[in-house]
Order: sequence, then structure tokens, then C-alpha cells
Amino acid sequence: MDMQPLSLNTGSTPQAVSDLVSTAVSQPNSPGQPHQPSQPIYRRLAEHYLSAIQAGTLAAGDRMPSVRDLMRQQHVSLSTALQTLRYLEEGGWLEARPRSGYFVRQPRRAQIRPVGEPNISAPLDPAQYVGIHEQVSDFIARRHLKAPTIDLSGMSCAPELYAVDALKNAAIKALREQPTLLTSPMPINGNSHFRQVVARRALNAGIRISADDVVVTHGCIEALNLALRAVAQAGDTIAVESPTYFGLLQTLESLGMRALEIPTSPHTGISIEALELAMQTYGNIKAVVVVPTLQNPLGCIMSDSHKERLVNLCEQQGVPLIEDDAYSELADGDVAPSAAKIWDRSGNVIYCASLNKVLAPGMRLGWMTCGKWNERVKMLKFAYTRANEEWTQITAANYMGSPAYDRHLRRLRSSLKDQREQMAEAIAEYFPDETRLSVPNGGVGLWVELPRKLSSKAVFGAALDEGIGVSPGVIFSNSDRFDHYLRLCCGKPFTRELDQALRRLGVITGQLLG
Amino acid sequence: MDMQPLSLNTGSTPQAVSDLVSTAVSQPNSPGQPHQPSQPIYRRLAEHYLSAIQAGTLAAGDRMPSVRDLMRQQHVSLSTALQTLRYLEEGGWLEARPRSGYFVRQPRRAQIRPVGEPNISAPLDPAQYVGIHEQVSDFIARRHLKAPTIDLSGMSCAPELYAVDALKNAAIKALREQPTLLTSPMPINGNSHFRQVVARRALNAGIRISADDVVVTHGCIEALNLALRAVAQAGDTIAVESPTYFGLLQTLESLGMRALEIPTSPHTGISIEALELAMQTYGNIKAVVVVPTLQNPLGCIMSDSHKERLVNLCEQQGVPLIEDDAYSELADGDVAPSAAKIWDRSGNVIYCASLNKVLAPGMRLGWMTCGKWNERVKMLKFAYTRANEEWTQITAANYMGSPAYDRHLRRLRSSLKDQREQMAEAIAEYFPDETRLSVPNGGVGLWVELPRKLSSKAVFGAALDEGIGVSPGVIFSNSDRFDHYLRLCCGKPFTRELDQALRRLGVITGQLLG
Repeated sequence: MDMQPLSLNTGSTPQAVSDLVSTAVSQPNSPGQPHQPSQPIYRRLAEHYLSAIQAGTLAAGDRMPSVRDLMRQQHVSLSTALQTLRYLEEGGWLEARPRSGYFVRQPRRAQIRPVGEPNISAPLDPAQYVGIHEQVSDFIARRHLKAPTIDLSGMSCAPELYAVDALKNAAIKALREQPTLLTSPMPINGNSHFRQVVARRALNAGIRISADDVVVTHGCIEALNLALRAVAQAGDTIAVESPTYFGLLQTLESLGMRALEIPTSPHTGISIEALELAMQTYGNIKAVVVVPTLQNPLGCIMSDSHKERLVNLCEQQGVPLIEDDAYSELADGDVAPSAAKIWDRSGNVIYCASLNKVLAPGMRLGWMTCGKWNERVKMLKFAYTRANEEWTQITAANYMGSPAYDRHLRRLRSSLKDQREQMAEAIAEYFPDETRLSVPNGGVGLWVELPRKLSSKAVFGAALDEGIGVSPGVIFSNSDRFDHYLRLCCGKPFTRELDQALRRLGVITGQLLG
Repeated sequence: MDMQPLSLNTGSTPQAVSDLVSTAVSQPNSPGQPHQPSQPIYRRLAEHYLSAIQAGTLAAGDRMPSVRDLMRQQHVSLSTALQTLRYLEEGGWLEARPRSGYFVRQPRRAQIRPVGEPNISAPLDPAQYVGIHEQVSDFIARRHLKAPTIDLSGMSCAPELYAVDALKNAAIKALREQPTLLTSPMPINGNSHFRQVVARRALNAGIRISADDVVVTHGCIEALNLALRAVAQAGDTIAVESPTYFGLLQTLESLGMRALEIPTSPHTGISIEALELAMQTYGNIKAVVVVPTLQNPLGCIMSDSHKERLVNLCEQQGVPLIEDDAYSELADGDVAPSAAKIWDRSGNVIYCASLNKVLAPGMRLGWMTCGKWNERVKMLKFAYTRANEEWTQITAANYMGSPAYDRHLRRLRSSLKDQREQMAEAIAEYFPDETRLSVPNGGVGLWVELPRKLSSKAVFGAALDEGIGVSPGVIFSNSDRFDHYLRLCCGKPFTRELDQALRRLGVITGQLLG
């Protein structure tokens, strides 16, 4: 996978671009576009220039049409033309050169160095019950207490980036069509229509399962718990990526299992070599847990060949592979990266997915398919939480079964890409020199490496005092190895307030560096 | 607690009763009554006579008003008067004596012997992973496959016995008032209004907690899992009632814990003496799990002094007491029996409750309050399923916070009492001699002891072949001790079909006895 900035081609003229966009601008609600009834003309115009810049049609250094050109070509007022250009300038896309006009800017983030690679040869250290939960809880509690104005610590997109009305209407329709939905017992294995919809989408993505193979769960986190309990028990060692999602570390701690952190590249994912060595060194590794696509917190996407090698290694070693695939629908582009599960020939891969990030953060709906452990997982699920509520599943199935869902996903990916690019640009501009950043090709998170091993705990505290929430890197490992990283959420629209918050974060970081 | 039939006083005349009911009958939709727009007059009239019988105003042997009396006193037609009397006769409440008219019948179930007491001195046997899940699954799968027309195996009431419209409207209102409810991240500890409503109701019942002490769970089953994991681990021994809810046995098996079954009286509940002896014999009992009110499957309610002794014993022995209180709001009468938790002074009682049976079987909403283990339980909950979805909680809170909820509970209790009495009556009439039954003072289940140790597995299979689902007693223990019992659900309105199904069950049982 690559982590390059968008390639910015040269060769087109501003004139050509303004011709190009004029049609689109005249159709404010073209199909497939988000419904933005109150969006002013200057924003629509700006966003069309922006997409031309992002597509490379307008390259760094190209001159933008002048205010006068814009007025004439787009039939807009002086004020609208000025607002358009200023909006793009504020977003960091244009720079004004005195007496020459506006030019497309070289993105600053192209100059920021990517995050460093891990030391593959460092000794590994299986940790058990090291108090990661307390540490995470402490950060969560402090953030909760201060209720930051700008919270970049989570991994959800802004509520309005989801299909608010369509989901609400689907929920109301479900209740109207089945008035006793809330008062009838739930089917033991979840709603069959929902399992069909999920299985059909999985089939399209190359995972050959039927609805009966789908176990519906309370989000991906229950799926991970079930997967781990299906194949391991207290005292066992589980290989995980390093850094990894703090929720996985908490789960392992709560189950009394040991996390063995395997070096993971922010660009290519978990090191197969290090994993193989670990399997040879520690005979008792009972499972490997990975997020092959848009790893949390790194954002990296494993290449297909890498995934295939991983699946084969685990199968050969007889170690179950647990795949957490909560983010792949948020990868840039029209085709989601393949799941590792598609290379599974023996049922050795337990595949866990979630709709929490892609469909609705207010619906804790996940699912899994467990190969040879399917019956055991069903037993564990039944004995712990029984079936999920049916109305959530019916609501999700009705919406996900319609073409609107794929349109929503395209819009969401596009919004996330814009937001990610703009945040990366702001970080590149505001953060101290030596800050490092790899911008992922999708997803909701940015993983920022602070200069000179500055502790993210200090940044967390100082930022919180100014009403800004961040996730300190230290919670993504049982060690202190990632203390000098921050995970920032790019799930919110890039507003002036967000821009200012990033500027403040940059200042705070600089001050802490002294 | 007592398990006597309703006391039937004598002394009032039919004339007085018909005066009494005439007012009520003329007000078809009086406040606090279920909304039954299409209920015919004969049904309303019959139900008012029925309540007079149940209240003892009309006693066994009393003569009912004649057809002519009914027509004159109630201003109804000949056909309505006839239907009223026949309806009550078919329900087993009246008997027709040739040339004398209708008389209130002596309930047959008054002649059936109560279920036998356990042998307290039998040796105990801690069982671990004995395959109870497979056994239960097998019964569930067979039932699922055959899809019985009359299913008496579950423990839910009929959907229409709940506040179908009010809940649906509350859900729709929640979605309308908070359009981004489905697309916003959930608060970590559950919805605060819901926790407040729950805490307030608990306070009224004598449990001194605040909203912060409430952990919202996916039904009582997740609460039980969390409670067990908070205080014990794989390999530990847990004392449980015998017989006990099969779900608890499955949970223990899935957690790798051993169930130590303590003899439990169908009339007074768990034997404190046997429990005390077990604690002395087995040093490693890590928790005691009980259902003090309307035990599943026995239906017994422990007396207050019994509960207090149990709480004190556990505290003295340093063994956590896990109280499963899913049914107490279904106990007959206007005041629910006290929870054992109210005698807890040291935080040694983990209290688990559920709204699944009392509010809505389609909402998997439970809660718990955990005394000194509250923080550990919150950690385990977060690490396994995160927060429950908020829309369910908001819907529940809005409805439960209104006076309509208590009216619903009164109606539900009253319906259940009728259904339970009628089913008991039918069992007494149709089942072979020597069948034993104790009719509980509330709840959804009847625990039937079959004659001559007849295996309930045989009854289960033969009944299923005729489209009738029952729960075989064998699933309520890790031993075969309760193989000659059936648990039958009385959560459905007593219809002609249900009456016929019970008649068939009686015939099947007789045939199997040979």
C-alpha cells in the first residue's frame, strides 16, 4: 500500500477547470451528492475547485481564475467570487501572491516526514494484566469530566455524515410495520433478513458465507471477545499488532490473556517475520489478532500478498487468525481492500466486522463469521448476551439492502478524505518541525509522531485544559513505546474551530518542547 | 410464602354481585383498564363475574344469576346472557347442574397435590462442563425445527400483553426528538435518564442506589455473566439453586465454572442449611446465585426472613451473593416482594434485574448494581460490549417514568394470574392422577411434577410431534434429578387452542405412563 499524498498532475489551465465546474455548480442537488439545501453558492463553487485540485486537474503552482474571471464565467457576484477564493485560501489550498492573484498551493503535508518504522529486532515482551484498563479509564474519565469543546479523541464521524433521515425513517417504518416488534421475543440467531444482507455484501467482497454463518454481535468488541474466548483462555498469549487498539488490550486484560505485541509498520502492517519468530519463540500463542485494513491507530492497509502470507502462516502454525475488519469500507476509492478472510481455506480465520463506524455510531451492531469455531461462538454468544435486539437489525437491513447505502458510503469516504487532507495540512502547518505524519488512504484517524519523544500524556493534559480532546499514544500499547504519538480523529468536518484547535495543539506541543 | 389457591369466601349473593358489576360493565374504557375496543359485551360481563369469583365475593357452590336474571339486571340480550355463562363454564369457573342453573365450581387444582420437597441430605456434586449447553441447544434446535403451534417452552408473555402502542410511540418520539440518535456515539455508561428512572424505582423498592451505581446491560443474562466474572474465574465453584434456570448453567459452563446445586424447596426457596453445610464442605465456593422471587423454574418466593438469613450467611462467610431479580414485578398483588439486596449492608450483594419480562421481550434491557464490585463490573462491561444502544434506553425511560408503566404492570399481573389459574385448572383436569403442581403467586411459569418419574424428554418429543412446545425438567439441572418435571409457560391468554393443547398434553402423558 502507499501513503503518498495525492498525485498532483500539471497541464490543465484554470480556464479549463472553470468550464469543467460550471455545469456541476448549476446543478445544486445532482444525484449521488449529499443533500445540502442551505449550502451557499460560494461553498459549492469552492468545493468544485477543490475537487479539481484533489483530482490533480489543478496542480500546485497553477494560477486560479481571477475574481473578475470567476464573476464572468460562473455568473456570480463580486462578493461570491471573493468568498470562494478566501474559503479555499483559508483551507490551505490556495495562496495569494501580491499583485499576481491566487495560486494552487503545494500541500505542506507533502513536506512532512512519514512516521518512523518500528524496530523489528527489539525483544518482545508478553504482558499480562498490566493495568492498561485503568490507564485508559483514567484518560476517558478526565476527558469526560472536562467535556472538551473540540474532541479529537474518538474514532466516530460526525453524526451528520451518516444517513440521519434515512435511518430514522427506516427505524420508524420498522416499528409501524411490526407494531409488536418491541414486545415480541427475539429470534435466537438474530434477524434473518439482516444476516442475509450482511452475507450478500460479504459474498460480493469475496467472503463465501451464507446467512447461517453470520453471528450478529454487539459491535466489533463483542465479536473480538467471543473470538478470543472461542480459541483461548485465561493465561494464554495472544499476538497483536503494536501499536494496537486500546480496546483490544483492555479486552485481553479483562479475559486474563497476555498480549504479545508484534512490531507493525505504519506503512505495510504487522511484520510477518517478527510474528513467525514470535511463534517459534513462544510455543503458547493461541491466536493472532490483526486489523489488515486501516489499522487502528496506524491507518495502514496491508497489501494483498501480505494478507495472504499472514493467513498461510497462521494456518501452517495452527494458530487461529482473528481479523478485525471494522474500517475497510472507509478506505479511499470505490472498491474496499480485500479481507484476509478471502484467503482462508481451512476455516482458520475468524472474521469480525462492525457497522458502528460505517452505518451508524448509535447502533452497536457488529457481526462475525467464525469458520470452524462457528458453533462454539454461537454457544458463547447465547450464554452471554443472547440475541441482539431485532429492531436495530431490521432498521439496518432495510437501509443496507437499498442502493442508498452504497451512495452513503461513497459520500462518507469522500468527506473523510477531504477532512483528513485538511487536517493533515493543518498539522503540517501548525505543529513543530520534526513532527511526523503518515496520511492513511482512508479511515477516521491520524497517527502523529511528536518530535524528540515528547510525551503525549503532557499534550493530552495541556490540550484538555484548553478544551481539546486527543488520544495519547501511550494507551495503544502495554509498554510506553508509543508515548510520543497522538491519535487524532478526522471524522469531523474541517471548520474554522477545528483549524484553530489544531493551531492551539501545535502551539501547546511547541511550548512543551521548550 | 404460601402457594394456596385463592381463598374463596362465602356469604355474598349473586344478586349483590350483579349489582356490583353493573356499574363497571357500563364503562367500557374506564381509566386504568386495558384498552380493548373490540371486546364484546359478554366478555366484559364474564370478566367481571370472574373477578368476583377470584376475589372470593362469589364462592365455590354459590349459584350464579339465571339467564333471565342476567338479562334483566344487566340489560343484555338472551344471547349475551347465554354466552356469558357458557364462557365462564368453558373456562372452568362454573358448572351447569341440570334443572338448577349454573354454580361456581370448586377449582380442581385445589385437589392437586403440591410439588414434592427436595431431599436436603442427599450428597452434593459440583459439576463442571457437563454438556448442559449441548443438551439445551438440542431441545431448542428441535423445537425451532418443528415450530410448534402452541409453544409453552419460553418464559415470555404474549406480545399483546405489553404496552405495544405506548412503547412504539415512545420509540418514534425519541427518534423524532433526537434525529441523530442513531448516528451519534453512545454515552459510555448508558443513558443517564434511564439510569435515573431505574434508580428511582429501585429506591422506592428499598434499594438505596443512585443513577451512578446502575450498570445498564444486555438483559439479565449479561448481568449474570458480569457478576460471575467479577467475583470468580474458570475452575471456581458457584452455588446455585436446584433446579435452576438452564441459562445460568449454560453461562457457568461457558465460563468454565462449576455449578454446585443446592436443594431448593418449591415452596420456601433455597435451603439455607444445605447452603451453609456446602460452604463448610467446599472451601472454594466463590459465589451464590439465587432468584429469591418467583424462582425459575419453581416459581417460589422466599420469605423476607429467609432472604435476610441468606444475605447474612453470605456476608459472614465472605461469599458474594448474586441476586437475579428478573420477575419480582410479576408477583401477584400491588407491592412487589422485597429484593434480598435491601438487607445488604456491606456491598456483598450483586443485584441483577431485567426489563425483558416486565416491559418488553423485544428489548434486551437489563441492569445491575454491584456493591463493592461496581468498578470491576463497569470495566468488564466496557471491555466486552461497551454501552447499550441509547434509543432502547430512552424509549424505556420515557415509558417507565410515566404512571402508565405501573398501570401496565397491574394489568399484566392480573392477566398472568388469570392465565395461570386457568392453566392450573386445565392441568388438574386433564393430566393423569398423581401429577403434582404448585401454583406460584405470580410469574410466567408452572412447574409440573409428572407421575411415577415419567421422563419429560419423552413428553417433550411426543408433544412436539403434535405441535406443542414444552420445557423438559432435565435442562434445569446438570443432573437428571428433574427429568420427571415440565415447565409450562402461562404467559399466553387462555384460549380454546391452549385448552386443547393442555388436554393433548394430558393424554400424551397418560399414554406414556402406559
